[in-house]
Amino acid sequence: MSNTEFGFISSVARLFADIPRGGFDAIGDDCTCIGIGGGESLVISTDMLVENVHFLRDASSPYELGCKSLLVNLSDVAAMGARPAASLLSLSLPRDATGAWAEEFMRGYHDISKRWGVALVGGDTTSSEGGIAVNVVALGRCPAGSVKRRSDAVPGDAICVTGRLGASAAGLRDILAGRADTDYARCHRLVDEGAWLGGRAEVHAMMDISDGIASDLRHIMECSGVGAEVHTECIPTDVDVETAVCGGEDYELLLTVDAGCCDKLREDYNARFGDELHVIGRIVGSADGRIVWLDNGRRIAPDWRGFEHY
Amino acid sequence: MSNTEFGFISSVARLFADIPRGGFDAIGDDCTCIGIGGGESLVISTDMLVENVHFLRDASSPYELGCKSLLVNLSDVAAMGARPAASLLSLSLPRDATGAWAEEFMRGYHDISKRWGVALVGGDTTSSEGGIAVNVVALGRCPAGSVKRRSDAVPGDAICVTGRLGASAAGLRDILAGRADTDYARCHRLVDEGAWLGGRAEVHAMMDISDGIASDLRHIMECSGVGAEVHTECIPTDVDVETAVCGGEDYELLLTVDAGCCDKLREDYNARFGDELHVIGRIVGSADGRIVWLDNGRRIAPDWRGFEHY
Repeated sequence: MSNTEFGFISSVARLFADIPRGGFDAIGDDCTCIGIGGGESLVISTDMLVENVHFLRDASSPYELGCKSLLVNLSDVAAMGARPAASLLSLSLPRDATGAWAEEFMRGYHDISKRWGVALVGGDTTSSEGGIAVNVVALGRCPAGSVKRRSDAVPGDAICVTGRLGASAAGLRDILAGRADTDYARCHRLVDEGAWLGGRAEVHAMMDISDGIASDLRHIMECSGVGAEVHTECIPTDVDVETAVCGGEDYELLLTVDAGCCDKLREDYNARFGDELHVIGRIVGSADGRIVWLDNGRRIAPDWRGFEHY
Repeated sequence: MSNTEFGFISSVARLFADIPRGGFDAIGDDCTCIGIGGGESLVISTDMLVENVHFLRDASSPYELGCKSLLVNLSDVAAMGARPAASLLSLSLPRDATGAWAEEFMRGYHDISKRWGVALVGGDTTSSEGGIAVNVVALGRCPAGSVKRRSDAVPGDAICVTGRLGASAAGLRDILAGRADTDYARCHRLVDEGAWLGGRAEVHAMMDISDGIASDLRHIMECSGVGAEVHTECIPTDVDVETAVCGGEDYELLLTVDAGCCDKLREDYNARFGDELHVIGRIVGSADGRIVWLDNGRRIAPDWRGFEHY
């Protein structure tokens, strides 16, 4: 969700404010969520992948694209702290991408589904007079109390990220070039980590890092009505800080954690995943919509915005 | 769902048969369905509309397209016997269809949402290097026992349709030409009728007529493992029988009804909607996959297939 997209979503949210939500979460999070009895919630996300925007047909095999289409949605489900359960798939295919192409796509989609026990429960197929379009809806389940919303951050929370940022700063370009292999391993880990973090009460807000934290953290701030301070020297990255905070498609999680329990959570996370949960800042009460960027304690004023889709 | 599409879906269903469905219905119906506690079920459908396949930008206003995008999905929810509750909307928009175009589209989508109390609870927006693509997910609720599946037909059932067939035999062409106004009224009525028929226990299988009954009735036969006899002279139409049974996009419902209760249901339906529920045949035990077409009791052997998408 870029700034431009976020503006569109805000105006749409205002337009639809006159319709009761009937138990569903409002738009604006990675997923919507509804109680399904038995102390469980169902979370639902939807994502569209479009040829020449998200992938090039010559650079991605149909098998890879089938894998990726589902994985990006499982990432949204994980970001809510839920386990993926089922998906619905809509495909719009031009004549030269039916037959063998569609079979290979479905083989990739199936292999990821099988790996995570995700049932295919619905969909739509249609021809296309343009390029390929793929829409996936992912459904996940989690205990009702452990849904992690963007609106759950509170002042004093530690701000954490699950991995090194900016590694796929050229993530989109990598995918366009078909070099998606490294993403898969990361994406798979994210699905496990999200569900595990979902089970921890000390984790408050959570979302996946899709547009860079310069953009994504502001969504948590806006949804929770809080501010944030980020210690730029604490950002785990192998590239420059600007690329690390503005690059999209990181396949990592951004979360806020009760500061008093943060050390224990990091220890358990490390024991479970053999990797570090990085603290990069803290949630503060001020809610003027701007992230306070600090460089070794000194306030800096960069113009960092995160990845924009349009 | 055309024959070709049905073939693709059958092969996909086989491919995914090794993944447990976790309480969800299998693919192949208008919607999937899951219990949500409190004696309720949630039904979920998804449909994709693509520029130059389902609509022409010059012929349909963005407002009309916004309306239609949601209405076709509410029709799928109605066909399960459920009341629409919420939707998720994915939009892929080329640069010349953002701004005012997108606002008008959302105004139409909102007006239909408002009319039916359907909350917008999620979505995705992305740019497009080709045409416009719209994917809508509709969610509906109904009492758990009154979900109407394609697999619920039993031998002896009367086969009924809710209106005159083939009136929009050129339905797709009408929509391409922008003459979609008449569809709206019909579509709105369908949403009411579906939920009302959903509440009647004597209604067994139900689906919307999307590809003509020559195709749609075979889906009920396949899902229920039954056969069907159709009295062609009983088919309510203002055009020739072939057009009536093979034309798509009728915005009517096809249902099977306990024969012993059919007269009472038709009476109540007429009292409620001022319109006739037409009996066109009956479900039989034979399951060779072919519809038995009768012309005043005499068996005929036409090659009627219904609308094909590819």
